[in-house]
Amino acid sequence: MILDKVNSPQDLKFLSPEELLELSAELRSEIVRVTAQNGGHLASSLGAVELIVALHKVYDSPRDRILFDVGHQAYAHKLLTGRKDVFHTIRQEGGISGFTKVSENQHDAITVGHASTSLANALGMAIARDTLGEDYGVVAVIGDGAFTGGMALAALNVIGGQKRKMLMVLNDNEMSISENVGALGRYFKEYQTNKWVQDTQKWGKNVLEGISPRLFNLVDRAKEAAKLMLHQENPFYAWGVRYVGPVDGHNLPELIHTLERLKELDGPTVLHIVTKKGKGYGVAEEDPIYWHGPPGFNPEKPEKVSKGYSWSAAFGDAITELAAQEPRLFVITPAMREGSGLVKYSQTYPERYLDTGICEDVAATTAAGMGLRGLKPVLAIYSTFMQRAYDQIIHDIAIENVPVIFAVDRAGIVGSDGATHNGVFDIAYLRTVPNVQIAAPKDALELRGMLKKALELGGPIALRYARDSVEKVPEGTWPEIDWAKWEVLKEGSIAYILAFGKTLKYALEAARDNPQVGVINARFIKPLDKEMLEKLALEGYKIVTVEDHQEMGGFGSAVLEALNQMNLKADLRVLGLPDVFYDHGAIPRMHAEAGIDAAAIQRALAELGVGFSLVRD
Amino acid sequence: MILDKVNSPQDLKFLSPEELLELSAELRSEIVRVTAQNGGHLASSLGAVELIVALHKVYDSPRDRILFDVGHQAYAHKLLTGRKDVFHTIRQEGGISGFTKVSENQHDAITVGHASTSLANALGMAIARDTLGEDYGVVAVIGDGAFTGGMALAALNVIGGQKRKMLMVLNDNEMSISENVGALGRYFKEYQTNKWVQDTQKWGKNVLEGISPRLFNLVDRAKEAAKLMLHQENPFYAWGVRYVGPVDGHNLPELIHTLERLKELDGPTVLHIVTKKGKGYGVAEEDPIYWHGPPGFNPEKPEKVSKGYSWSAAFGDAITELAAQEPRLFVITPAMREGSGLVKYSQTYPERYLDTGICEDVAATTAAGMGLRGLKPVLAIYSTFMQRAYDQIIHDIAIENVPVIFAVDRAGIVGSDGATHNGVFDIAYLRTVPNVQIAAPKDALELRGMLKKALELGGPIALRYARDSVEKVPEGTWPEIDWAKWEVLKEGSIAYILAFGKTLKYALEAARDNPQVGVINARFIKPLDKEMLEKLALEGYKIVTVEDHQEMGGFGSAVLEALNQMNLKADLRVLGLPDVFYDHGAIPRMHAEAGIDAAAIQRALAELGVGFSLVRD
Repeated sequence: MILDKVNSPQDLKFLSPEELLELSAELRSEIVRVTAQNGGHLASSLGAVELIVALHKVYDSPRDRILFDVGHQAYAHKLLTGRKDVFHTIRQEGGISGFTKVSENQHDAITVGHASTSLANALGMAIARDTLGEDYGVVAVIGDGAFTGGMALAALNVIGGQKRKMLMVLNDNEMSISENVGALGRYFKEYQTNKWVQDTQKWGKNVLEGISPRLFNLVDRAKEAAKLMLHQENPFYAWGVRYVGPVDGHNLPELIHTLERLKELDGPTVLHIVTKKGKGYGVAEEDPIYWHGPPGFNPEKPEKVSKGYSWSAAFGDAITELAAQEPRLFVITPAMREGSGLVKYSQTYPERYLDTGICEDVAATTAAGMGLRGLKPVLAIYSTFMQRAYDQIIHDIAIENVPVIFAVDRAGIVGSDGATHNGVFDIAYLRTVPNVQIAAPKDALELRGMLKKALELGGPIALRYARDSVEKVPEGTWPEIDWAKWEVLKEGSIAYILAFGKTLKYALEAARDNPQVGVINARFIKPLDKEMLEKLALEGYKIVTVEDHQEMGGFGSAVLEALNQMNLKADLRVLGLPDVFYDHGAIPRMHAEAGIDAAAIQRALAELGVGFSLVRD
Repeated sequence: MILDKVNSPQDLKFLSPEELLELSAELRSEIVRVTAQNGGHLASSLGAVELIVALHKVYDSPRDRILFDVGHQAYAHKLLTGRKDVFHTIRQEGGISGFTKVSENQHDAITVGHASTSLANALGMAIARDTLGEDYGVVAVIGDGAFTGGMALAALNVIGGQKRKMLMVLNDNEMSISENVGALGRYFKEYQTNKWVQDTQKWGKNVLEGISPRLFNLVDRAKEAAKLMLHQENPFYAWGVRYVGPVDGHNLPELIHTLERLKELDGPTVLHIVTKKGKGYGVAEEDPIYWHGPPGFNPEKPEKVSKGYSWSAAFGDAITELAAQEPRLFVITPAMREGSGLVKYSQTYPERYLDTGICEDVAATTAAGMGLRGLKPVLAIYSTFMQRAYDQIIHDIAIENVPVIFAVDRAGIVGSDGATHNGVFDIAYLRTVPNVQIAAPKDALELRGMLKKALELGGPIALRYARDSVEKVPEGTWPEIDWAKWEVLKEGSIAYILAFGKTLKYALEAARDNPQVGVINARFIKPLDKEMLEKLALEGYKIVTVEDHQEMGGFGSAVLEALNQMNLKADLRVLGLPDVFYDHGAIPRMHAEAGIDAAAIQRALAELGVGFSLVRD
């Protein structure tokens, strides 16, 4: 094994071209082997193997900084940077992260998980380097999907104006998680099918040989030379950055050859490479959407497995049925069709479906425009990504009380994706915004009822649910929801637990067989059910609130506010996530550590004097 | 007066070309007259007069929807759409808004104030129109500054893919509020100086006549024709939208001629017009930055007035001095150099200054990159615009505890700019994020001390201050700040008011001459001074918290959380802004209405049983 000899990127410097090719194959095998065990981001990591080998061959990490946009394609990078021995722990409890993470390893230039941030980060680093009089390379690797995000485009605009020395590798694999959409998507596809790319071997040789005397001798002339390579409608040139490409991203010698030369150039350069997601692993090449982030599989006999019935699927089923009843319903997703359960909907109602690509802000404001003109837009979005549409929710939606339903998926701690993906701020940042209502269904049935009711009510309404499985319910079932009213699930004689969504099961577990302790499905977070809350406080019940969300600013905080407003003092414990970021790991362990599981609820009840031996006075 | 005859846009249909020219002149006079009285967005509104007349002549508002990006250039639009009789009330208490506002008038297509939202909104409207089988025009007017915002660029990408019928007028006035920056800025400037534009009269005639048979007969052929007009490096073509221009935006007949033809075209079109900010008013043409949003002036003899010493100026002075002491300090602004008090700094330290243009997300993440590589970035940003960098603050800055100082200007209710500009959510959305610290200086001296200390401490730290004047302090004064400690400004025997920033003066006023009531400068919002809070509660003091921020999720909510965590119950009143949006108006009146002024504090104290006759037991 060549990989056995590689303990840091420096070890690549001494490998022959043949050994580097062999190393690439070994990296691919190892990625498949471990992903088969752990699940993980398979297809994109397979597509980036040669690029990563070439980058580490040509650049000197950690001196040079290599930034991976999104960071989930960097498995080969992890294997080459001293983490091969722990690579089998990726995304596992106590193991290494599935993304690059600054605090994990000196070779990880950014901590990441959300798309389109690498260019601005790289610009900041290049400015820091120049300002401090230092000298190192800054390379951002960004996919074509992430590239359509507004942040990347706007950053490119600033980069074109700043003219700092930096390389941006546009890894064009013709697909983000969902299909790539919009004009740039078409533009990239054009490249995929033009004859240059179809014969990259020949093209690469001829063109690079042809330009090298001019391109690499003098920067000013290089610009002129690069122009010759341009497709006439190439957008990069207009941005004021040098453009080189497209280059076959799986041709390792070609990549190394190109990078070695580009490394010397001053100013900002985009290197456009073309790769195939899932490269080298048949099933992943054929269906890179499923194999983007599969759960564990048999590497010898890879088969798709049904992921169980998720909240996302429950939402997808419900919204597809509702669309039949409500012709004004329109669903928007920022590049999360599969993750949000929208495959069936998008096929059934393609004319009432919009995938904006990775630009959550645009998705939200497009929904605003629709809502202002008579549609009933539903924005399917992950809690963590909704953070990117915060101003748009306030400015374009809430101020005029525009009817937009937010189907907020992946709320709470998400497990293996870690800190960048936890959906643990949404209640705090949404509830402070006037006109916004927030609810959290306890099951698929309640989700259906809430969705239907929300369509009738209008205004901005967020429905929050977890990354989790849920029991499937029959088509056509639409329970009537008593809006803004909580629901007593279990009576208690001394105390009540207020929980919603994922923590309800902990509450029921904590209260089981204990007649003193009641459980309330506090499904409406804004507005709160103040009437019920007042009753509980006036009647002297002890209260424990519990939520899979930051304690600061969350539901418990809202309860404290409401009680204070009503001038009521209750014996109350607020359980939520403490003021830290949670890395990836097992959700039950994190919930226990955070103190929001059944045991923690029982401890809180005990602190309030509730125990099995107590009787209410 | 022609304007006397115009009560709705329909009245423009019957005016002759000469009358329309006269009307334009009258609109300009009226804009100058009223802005001289009230202050307001003068330069951009003067620059858009002919465009607005032409749009209302050609399109049928309110059936057709005309969207003004940012919405501060639309004074002529207000005058033409039934608001000429109330136009003198613009930005005044009880008067009409300085921006377009859906709930104010049926001709205002969007409620707006933040930049770059019009394209996504227009796309949503065009989709709604097509989905509902309706037929009307959708026109977005967007400046070149707003156009460099990521949201606009990403929206254009989706628009290019969607191919809906819509017109985007790129109003290229070579300048956003600050100078236009970046690659697109240079691109637009190139147009400004090319010979086409220098002889627009001739050019417009020839080119439009030349293309009209091809451009306007058939859509498919129009696309080909438009190509002929393209600068070879035109970026729009790459986006998949039709491009027409540049056209002289002050040549009314030319504008009408062009719009009439473009109105018939299917698909998305960008019409690039070139205008001059301040057009027709000498001083505003010469110095459009000052005359962007001047306070009142004498229209006959317009003179710049000193705006007094503001918090922004205090920040600008402090940061310029600190830059001399700290070579790693670097200041970033998203297109708010003047508003953030950075003119002097940017001139003194141009090499440690970056204006990213209007893209707050990019500004924040560029700061992250700088902070990761040894700089000490300071992001000067308005509270309301920081909403646009929320995810970047969490994802790129807070997770790794990157040292970035946020100089958060315009916190609290801002007055004449209204709901879109109020900075009243920042505490709620920031304090829920781990690692983020939030402080609010009481005066310029404390701001200086906090800035200096924050540079030493590292990590993400937000310093929050109001749109207000502040007393100037001598250079070189750097008070030592006892970090995370509150400050007792006045002792009280029974009760304490916890206030910070703008509400401190109300607190002092409420407590004046009352020995029972103390005042604490609760200048650290996160972390709270729990020690002092505990002491107050344990010693039985009654507490009133008061803040110029939403009550939900704000400082008072944090105090409730902290007391609950410490298992303490205090007699406490939380005063903050209620759960509504506040329009423009007089700040003292709004503070009174919201219940956060001195009288409200005294009422709260009275409710807690504090009065002049009480003595502490």
